[in-house]
Order: sequence, then structure tokens, then C-alpha cells
Amino acid sequence: MAPTFKGSDSALWPDLPRGPLSSYRARASFSAAALQLFLEGEDVVRFKKTIFSALEKDPLFARSRGADLPLEKYRELNFLRCKRVLEYGFFSVEDLATSPLRVWALIHCLGMYDWSLAAKCILHLLVFGSAVFTSGSERHLKYIEKAFSMEVFGCFALTELSHGSNTKAIRTTAHYDPATQEFVIHSPDFEAAKFWVGNMGKTATHAVVFAQLHTPEGQCHGLHSFVVQIRDPKTLLPMPGVMVGDIGKKLGQNGLDNGFATFHKVRVPRQDLLNRTGDVTPEGTYVTPFKDARQRFGASLGSLSSGRVSIIGMSVVNLKLAVSIALRFSATRRQFGPTEEEEVPVLEYQLQQWRLLPYLAAAYALDHFSKSLFLDLMQLQQGLMQGHHGARQAELGREIHALASAGKPLASWTAQQGIQECREACGGHGYLAISRLGDLRDDNDPNCTYEGDNNVLLQQTSNYLLGFLERGACFRSPLRTVDFLEAHSTILGQRLPGARVADWLDSAVPLAAYKWLVCYLLQESYQKLNREKESGSNDFNARNNSQVHYCRPLALAFLELTVAQRFHDHTHGPGVPPSLRPVLGRLSALYTLWSLNRHTALLYQGGYLSGERAGTLLESAVLDLCAQLKDDAVALVDVIAPPDFVLDSPIGRADGELYKNLWNAILQEGGVLERPSWWPEFSVNKPVVGGLRAKL
Amino acid sequence: MAPTFKGSDSALWPDLPRGPLSSYRARASFSAAALQLFLEGEDVVRFKKTIFSALEKDPLFARSRGADLPLEKYRELNFLRCKRVLEYGFFSVEDLATSPLRVWALIHCLGMYDWSLAAKCILHLLVFGSAVFTSGSERHLKYIEKAFSMEVFGCFALTELSHGSNTKAIRTTAHYDPATQEFVIHSPDFEAAKFWVGNMGKTATHAVVFAQLHTPEGQCHGLHSFVVQIRDPKTLLPMPGVMVGDIGKKLGQNGLDNGFATFHKVRVPRQDLLNRTGDVTPEGTYVTPFKDARQRFGASLGSLSSGRVSIIGMSVVNLKLAVSIALRFSATRRQFGPTEEEEVPVLEYQLQQWRLLPYLAAAYALDHFSKSLFLDLMQLQQGLMQGHHGARQAELGREIHALASAGKPLASWTAQQGIQECREACGGHGYLAISRLGDLRDDNDPNCTYEGDNNVLLQQTSNYLLGFLERGACFRSPLRTVDFLEAHSTILGQRLPGARVADWLDSAVPLAAYKWLVCYLLQESYQKLNREKESGSNDFNARNNSQVHYCRPLALAFLELTVAQRFHDHTHGPGVPPSLRPVLGRLSALYTLWSLNRHTALLYQGGYLSGERAGTLLESAVLDLCAQLKDDAVALVDVIAPPDFVLDSPIGRADGELYKNLWNAILQEGGVLERPSWWPEFSVNKPVVGGLRAKL
Repeated sequence: MAPTFKGSDSALWPDLPRGPLSSYRARASFSAAALQLFLEGEDVVRFKKTIFSALEKDPLFARSRGADLPLEKYRELNFLRCKRVLEYGFFSVEDLATSPLRVWALIHCLGMYDWSLAAKCILHLLVFGSAVFTSGSERHLKYIEKAFSMEVFGCFALTELSHGSNTKAIRTTAHYDPATQEFVIHSPDFEAAKFWVGNMGKTATHAVVFAQLHTPEGQCHGLHSFVVQIRDPKTLLPMPGVMVGDIGKKLGQNGLDNGFATFHKVRVPRQDLLNRTGDVTPEGTYVTPFKDARQRFGASLGSLSSGRVSIIGMSVVNLKLAVSIALRFSATRRQFGPTEEEEVPVLEYQLQQWRLLPYLAAAYALDHFSKSLFLDLMQLQQGLMQGHHGARQAELGREIHALASAGKPLASWTAQQGIQECREACGGHGYLAISRLGDLRDDNDPNCTYEGDNNVLLQQTSNYLLGFLERGACFRSPLRTVDFLEAHSTILGQRLPGARVADWLDSAVPLAAYKWLVCYLLQESYQKLNREKESGSNDFNARNNSQVHYCRPLALAFLELTVAQRFHDHTHGPGVPPSLRPVLGRLSALYTLWSLNRHTALLYQGGYLSGERAGTLLESAVLDLCAQLKDDAVALVDVIAPPDFVLDSPIGRADGELYKNLWNAILQEGGVLERPSWWPEFSVNKPVVGGLRAKL
Repeated sequence: MAPTFKGSDSALWPDLPRGPLSSYRARASFSAAALQLFLEGEDVVRFKKTIFSALEKDPLFARSRGADLPLEKYRELNFLRCKRVLEYGFFSVEDLATSPLRVWALIHCLGMYDWSLAAKCILHLLVFGSAVFTSGSERHLKYIEKAFSMEVFGCFALTELSHGSNTKAIRTTAHYDPATQEFVIHSPDFEAAKFWVGNMGKTATHAVVFAQLHTPEGQCHGLHSFVVQIRDPKTLLPMPGVMVGDIGKKLGQNGLDNGFATFHKVRVPRQDLLNRTGDVTPEGTYVTPFKDARQRFGASLGSLSSGRVSIIGMSVVNLKLAVSIALRFSATRRQFGPTEEEEVPVLEYQLQQWRLLPYLAAAYALDHFSKSLFLDLMQLQQGLMQGHHGARQAELGREIHALASAGKPLASWTAQQGIQECREACGGHGYLAISRLGDLRDDNDPNCTYEGDNNVLLQQTSNYLLGFLERGACFRSPLRTVDFLEAHSTILGQRLPGARVADWLDSAVPLAAYKWLVCYLLQESYQKLNREKESGSNDFNARNNSQVHYCRPLALAFLELTVAQRFHDHTHGPGVPPSLRPVLGRLSALYTLWSLNRHTALLYQGGYLSGERAGTLLESAVLDLCAQLKDDAVALVDVIAPPDFVLDSPIGRADGELYKNLWNAILQEGGVLERPSWWPEFSVNKPVVGGLRAKL
């Protein structure tokens, strides 16, 4: 049932300030409050408001962006804020199971404020905590309790200096010593140093360390994880045998201390092996419920998915913030006009609309996808908790893994490109640090490479799809994302039905085109792989040589379709309030068409489109939708933008007073009007031009 | 004549260190020294070596990247380095006329070291200097002399807080007062503050200020420029009536102090009007050699071009540095392999080749274009100096303006996208600040928006091309870039000739396709504009509604063709040493095909391509060329990469010792192994979880 809209709830939706944006707001076709209520529900709207208000009132969260905060100071501030988040008690361990959408909302609220803060909290509580919870057993729960009370501080240490994507080749070892009933954790050399580990640089006391487990008879049982104490909680000094340090400044997220560690024969008790998938008896015998290592590895897919699903959500948040800034800027920045006297807002230009509005639509479509995939994941995890081990549970795990593995690339790249477009669309003012667009880009950037490099991850999804064909299996999956492929031979015979722009203005026509595209790429990828194998390539080379124009676009197109289909279904369902249907329908169609338009060459190549007119129809439809949405753009931003304090961009404030806000912000910076401390270097110490030429 | 190769010149080309890159170097098909000599000539190679050596030996240029340099300190260091550059006397005023390629090389050497430094020098000497030189007269030469001896420090103040692209709407005024023979420079309000002006933030004493010139009878004569003293050189304190300050931190180039200024009835002597295009008599009468303001405005096109040509060169430098880092990384980073024991360099993966090698080819092709366009510009400026005012001179000015206006977008975007791809292709390690890929991206970023926003600039080029059709003029231009369009009706009848991959492996076939594409887009743009006008749009709206799918791709495709054609001609000419022909031919073909491949949809749409096979042929050719070039990639990088000290990236050093260099660099950072100063905040001051919940 759709939530009821209480339009008079002025505490939740106070009037927006009047000003340069008012005329756009007045022209909007819908109520921003009604749309937010439909998308998020009153409970989440209220919860977010509570969080934002707490941060705004707390001096510890007063901004220092743009100021020249030294690394050490930023790290300290970020740590103190992390502690404060625990003090506010925004959520409890129980919420993870009972109110997952509140946890989801909390993470995004903290991330909207600063991803360094959100990342520090997530890595400590959720990543360290859930690694212990899902890989360990009863005896390890104490670590989770201690993490929540901050007696220990956690991190997750998988990657090494020389190994990231190829995690199976991790070289840290854990030899079991029955004499003392301990594991000896050891780094063979510095290339095997744990590296990039968030929280490890300065704060973590305990790490979940992945190492190759060896038993005394000499056998290696593959990667296992161990809780290893790396620092003394009383002093934050390293434990004996551990060399732990900070990997230094990164492009972004510098409030977070990423670190490295090498282990010189560091001993940990036998009990600190996280033993869910394999254990060692006191005598040194390896025992596991799994038949082979591959199966054991497969069982951990669920926990990989949760990282990727989180990143999809993080990317969407970044995209939302960037389009909010750029669209409010575009509605208030005037440049050129039909006459010399009258300048128009740059949002009125078709080119500016085309640059920005598809990313606004993408933010909405991907937001719905990320939330729905998160709920799917929760369903999966609850099944695991309840001990489900049936075929459907396994299939659900595989499907979610496939969706997360391509969803992360799609979302992180869309955000990356969208933020860049927003930055450029704001011209020079977008290049000012206080615009925040640089921080957004820098903080979003690692989403493209961590938790699996995007290009490597896409192979998981294409392998999943190809697997059905290779096994000759029915295309059926619990979430029904692949079901349409069952009819692939029929679909491949289809051709573009719509011959007028009007046909393209609803998402149904482009969705049909997308289905054809995915079938086409699946067939082409399958044939390409077979050709490679027939010409003598081994499996490794056959896969590698089928990525660029086959498996890679297959995975992306499949995910784009899934995102578009889910958003279409959500915006066309019976629960959608009538007043919101037109705008949601346009957002859905715009995202679908704009995404599809990247594949026009393939649509022609495979014969789905033909003739000159087909391509221009698609392009015209995108521009028409942009024109229809431009008067709604400011109100659509009001739905997704956090309060000014959190958005923290003088060029994107809700009052639209672009130049006043920018001017004020610039004059607030320290020493802005002062001469430089080194003025005598100009005024007194004059250079002798060419005086050093003899030294050349 | 091609320069002779003295292979034994070990001072210019010392042996590269042996190590993990040696095997790639041994497999290269050509000599890196021979290629560098062919492309740059011995004089420039030697000059660059002199500059790099001077910087490396001078402690003032010791790096502090990655360290947490406060803004004020970085500004000071950058200023001191700028002064030191003058002391070295790398170039003189005379070199600008006699050895332009040495000045070009110097700028790029400084930029390779740090764009903040290059920008500070360029803005002071070249931009301020040449604005005075080209817009002023005899009486202003004193400012140039004083700039070169650093008695004054210069900046160029055109844009305002509320006006950038639309420079005609600049609102600062200059009213002439005959009583005192002074101009009164005035900012009507803060929105008219000069803004974004490089060097104005902390250092400039004198600014070339653009203002609307008003004479006493009340007439406004449009924008003119004035030399305005803004600070006292003896104290660096602002002059009366001038409020001048720093606009604060930017995404990059933070060694440069960008600033703002407002003028409150600031009086400057009549003589400080830069009076080349218009002057005011002592009594207050406006005199100009130009008939109308539009013509006067057109006369300044040449100086606009020089900024844009410079930016093309700057973008190419950034791209060169980024691909150098990413390709050396890719040749030494091993991950996965055909068996579990053997891991292969990631450069061996087709996907990695496809991600990076086209950008390497683009760096070579765009480098040649930028240098040749710079020489064209020098020819134009020498013509102006010699008083040429004929039709050819005017046509040359227009053509160079058109090439620079689309060349800047093409080069800056290619660099932007290339650096991002390089950063991602280096995975996490590319996200470390010490990799330098972040600085390259941030320093390159303003190239996309300053000196004319890329999207706005492209309209200059499409207008230039459409102008021939609209006037019904012959397609003839001094540099012959448009001459092929004369045959557009014939070309439009052509269809893809090559039906085998082999046909595509030379640039001739894709160049023919490009010519068709430009003709097609020109025709389509022309028709679209006419349709818009026929349907009642005014000129303003007709242009605006013809950009996205018509004029914008027209300008870009025309420039891509020009770049590709020039590089093709350069690499296929009689002077090319035979040993270099294969590799240069492949680079030329790869750049052309890869660029063309972005337009495959249009090639199908317009009927130039048809059938399934055509599209896959093009894609296969790109991959084939990548495979052919991958063993040459490291040697091609050796040709364009500066010495390690300047490249300054531990993951891209010439010895290829990826992990040793990275590990050393990390351990060199201050306090890397120390506990944080704020350790008691964790160890002693424990949070009360949920203790603040009551405050929510």
C-alpha cells in the first residue's frame, strides 16, 4: 500500500527558502514531499532528519572543508566523529536484522556528510564485525561485542602489496604448531605485506587476516581468516612481530587511515581461526564440512556480495549529491540569451539538459535498484541464518552475486562519469574545492577498483549468464532477472517496432530493445568463446580474448536492463500515486533510452535498427524527455538532496543564491585578504635574471 | 630532412636500468632513441635534458608531493621556484620569436614537473606580457621589461564572478575623466568582481583588467583592457580602492594563487589603456582604426587562439605522463595466469591493452597535432608582426581559431578520460597520492573549462564549417584542413570499401571513413539548422537546438580527422626512417580507428557501413593493432616519459621495480610507523555507546 501523504507535516518538510529557484519549483508538476514519501516512507524520512539534525547541532561536526586540514588532524577528527556516532546510538546490533533499511539510511546519511566517516564506521563495525560473524563461530562473538563498545578497533586484511584481484594467490601463511596450539602468521617478504587495509594505518587493534593455512603434515588448505591482534589497545603500539603502518595520502577518503602490515612469525591461539568453513583440531588435523576447496570458496560468495551491494549504494549517494549541486547551479547561473540584455539560466540550454538530466534519472533508477538489491541480499542472509541450504538459496546467492558484480561497475562508473560531467557543467566554479564536486569525485573513485576491479568483476556476471547456455539449463532465477532469456531465439528475431518519437517516450519500447540487445550479446559471446576454443585457445585465453566486445558489454547491458526494468516496474505499479506517474514515467524512460543509446551501434550491427530514421528517433526521444523534465529538475533535486549543512556546497544551496553564497564562502576562508607571509621574497629578494645560467 | 641518428650519444640516451621492464624493451621493434630524435630533433632533446638536470640538482626542486604541504607553504615554494626559473634564464624574450619550439619545450618541461609552476610563469610572463604586447603600444613595453625583471608581477583579469563564457557581458566599467586624464575603474557590485584570475590571489602587482569603456558624452565603446596596479610592489599590500584576495583551494594546481578583485573608483592614468584597437584622446574622444565593435572584437581572435593552443599542449603532456605510469605499471604488475603457478603481466591481457594502448597512440597523435598547430600559430603571429593584413592572413586566423577551439576540447577530454582510465588500470595503487595519477587528473581538469568551456568552444568550430556552406563559399583554407569538403557531395555517395580486417590496419581506410563522417555531419547540421529556422526558431534557439547530435559531433569529428590526417601524413612521409615506419604506422592507424569507432552508430545510421560484419571488422582491427603494439609499448613510453625525478611516480619508474619502489616510497613518508598523536582518544577516553541517544 502506498503511504499516505500528510502534506501539512511542516516539521518533516519545512518550506524551502524563496529565491532564484522558486520559479522552477513553482513550475514543477508534482509535490517533492509526496515523491519523497512514496520513495522512502515516513519512517526513513524521519530517521534521516534525526541524524542530520544531530550532526548539524554538534560542534564536532562543524565543517572544515576547503580549509587546509593536515592529514593527522583529519584522521583525528574522523576518529572522534566515529566515536560520537556510537555515542548517539543511531543503531544497534539488532537493527541489522530487524530494520535493515534504517541501517542502510544511516550509512548513506553519514556518507553524504563524509565518506571517510562512513567508511571508518562500516569497516570497523560491519566489515570486521560481519567477517567475524559469518566466518567464525560462537567463540568469536566476543570480538563483535568488543568492537561495538570500542574496546577493540577492527579491520579486514585480505589484499597484499602484490595481490589484489587474484586473492587465491595471497601469500601470507598460517602454520599450525600443535606444541603450543597456535597458528604462526608470517609474511614471506614485503610483497606479501597486507596492504590497503582501511583502519589499519593508525587505529585498528585487531585484524581479520587472510592467510594460507598449513597443517603440520605439510598440506596447504587454502585461504582462511584469523583474528590477529596487531596493536595493544592500551597504547595503540604494535604487537611484537607486527610491523604496521600507514600507506599515506590517497586521492580521496583521507580521513580514513589505510595501512599495511607484515607479520614476522606472529603467534595467535588456535581458537582465533575463524572456523565456519574449516577448522584444525588441537592435534593439527584439518576438518571441514565442505568436500573440496572450490566449494568452500563458493560458500563465501554471499559476503563478497554485501561489499559490492554497499558500493552500489555509496555510488548512488555520490551521484545524487553531484547532480543536486550541478542542477541547482544550472538553474541559477545565467549566461548568454536571445538578446544582449536578457541572459537565461544555463539549464534552459538543450545541451546542458542533455549533459545533466540523464544523470538525474540515473540517480533515481540506480537508487531504486540498489535498495531493492540490498533487500534481496537481506533475504539471502536471513535464509542463511535460518539454515536454508536448498537449491533456491544457492541459486539466489548466485543471482545476487551476478547482479552485484555488474551492478558495482555500472553504479560506480555512472557516478564517476556523472560527477565529472557535473563538475564541468559548473564551469570554473565547479573547480573550486568548496563546490565539493572534487571531493565527491575523489571519494567515489575507489568504488571503481576496490572490492574487485570493475572490469574483472564484470566477468562474474557474464560467466553467470553464459553458464546457463553452456549447461543447456533453463533460464530461471529466483529474482527472475534472467527469465526472459528463455525466449532468446524468438527475441533475436524481433525488430524495432516503434517508428515514431512518441513510441520511445515510454520505457516499454526501449526495454524491448534492451532484451534483444542482451540476447544478441549473449549469443555473440557464446559463439566467440567457442570460436576461440576451436582455434586452439585454452580456457584462460579464450575468456581473455572474448571480453572487450563480447562478455564485457554483455554484463553491462544485462545490468542496465535489470536496473531499467526494476525502475519501470516500480514506477508503473498500481501503488504509484497518480500525481507522480508522469514524472516517474519520464525518469524511467529517460534512463532507459539514454543507456540504450550507448549501444546504438550494436543495435544497427545486429539488425535490430535499420535506416537513418531509427537512430535519430532514439536521440530525439532523449532530448524530448529532457525538455519535459527540465522544469521538474529542481523539485526532483529537492527530493534527493540532503540539507544544506550536509550538502555543503555554496553553489548548490537550497535558496539558490548562487553568488551571495559563493562570495560569502570565499570571504570566510582564513587569510583571504592578507598578504602572504613570504611577501619579502617578492618585494625584497629580487632575482638576477639569468644569474644561474652558468650553472646549466 | 630527417635528422641523423647518432646512436652512440650516451650522454643524451644513457642505458636504461636493467630489471623487470628489460624483456619488453628487448622485444621492441625499434630504437627509442631513434624515435625521439625523429620526433623532437637533437636540439630540443638536449635542451630538455639541460632543464631536467638543472631541476634535479637544485634542492629547491626537491619533491614534497604526498607530504601534507599547507596551501600557504605550497604557494611560497611555487613562487620561489618561479623566481629560480628566471634566474636560470632558460629563455629570453627574443627566444619567443627566434626559437619558439624551445619555449614550447620549456613550458612542457616545467609542466611535467608541476603545472602550478608552469602556470605561474606562463601567466606572469606570457599571458600578461603578450596581452600588453598585442593590445598595447610602445608606451606599454616598460611593463613587459619590468615583468621579466620581476619588478612587477602580472595577471590577466577578464572573467567575473557572474560572467565567464559570455565575456561581452562583463560589467566592470572604465569611465574616462578628462579633468584629470584618468580612467575610473569600478565594479558595480560583488557579482562583477574579477574572479578566477591566476596570480591575483597573493602575488600580482599589476593586472590587465577588462572593462566597458565609457567616454564623457555617455557612450559605451565595449570591452577594452587596462593595466591596473593592484598591489604595491614594495609591500604586496593592496592599492587604495582595490579589494583583492584569494579564492581559496581548488581541485588542483594549488601552487597557483587564483584570486578576485573589486575596484572602488580606482583611478589609472589615460596612458594605461591598452590602445591597439581603440584609444581615448586627452579630451575624451574615442578613436579606433576599426569600423565597428564587432570587427574590433574579431581582431582579438588571434590572442584567444594562443591560450587554446597552449592548453592542447598542456593536455598532451598530462596524457603522456599518465600513460607512461600506467603502461610501466601494467608491464610489471602480474595478476592471474594460465596456471596457478604462473602469473602474467596485466599488459598481456587484451582488455588492458584495449584500455591503455589507444591512449598511448592518442598521446603521440595529439602531440604532433599540438606542435604543428603551435607552429601554424607562430606563422600567424609573425604575419601580424610584419603587418600582413591580407585575406590569407585573415583566413589563416579564422582557420587556426577553428582548429584551436575544437582542438582544446578534444585534447583536454582525451587527457581527462585517459588519465581516469590509467588511474583505474593501476587499481588501488593508482589511488595512492604518490602514484601522481590523482594530481595529473586534478591539474588537467581545468583544461576542460577554462579559456572557454569545451562545449561552448566547439560551436566556434562548427560555425566555421557551416559558414562555408551558408555563404556558398569554396571550401579552401590556408592549412587545407577543410579542402576535402569541396567534394562533399561525391564523398557522401561513398560506402565502406574495405571488407577485410587487413584493410583497416592502415590509417588510409579509416581516414576515408572519417571524411565521409564529417561531410555527413556537416550536411545533417546544416539541414537541422534550416529545419529549426523554418519552424520559426530565432537564430539563438536554432543554434542551441542543433548542438547535441549535430554541431557538437561535427566539430569533434572534424578535429579528430584533422589530428589523424596530420599524424598520418607525418608518419608516412618520405623523411621517416625505415626502422620507424611500422610502429608509427600502427600508432597512426590505432588512433584513427579507435576514434572512429566512437562514431560507428553514425556510420551505420548514414549508410556508410552496413551489415553485421562491418562493425566487427573495425573492432577487430583495433584489437589487432593493440596486440601488435603491446611489445613496443614500454619503448614507446621511454620516448615520451621524462626522467624518474620528474615523472615522480614510484609505480612508473624506468627500472620497473614496482614493489620495491612503492614500498620504499611509503616508508619514506613521515610518521608512517608511529602511533597517532591522539592515541589516548582511543585508549583512554572510551565512548558510552548510546550515551547521547537522549539528545536526539
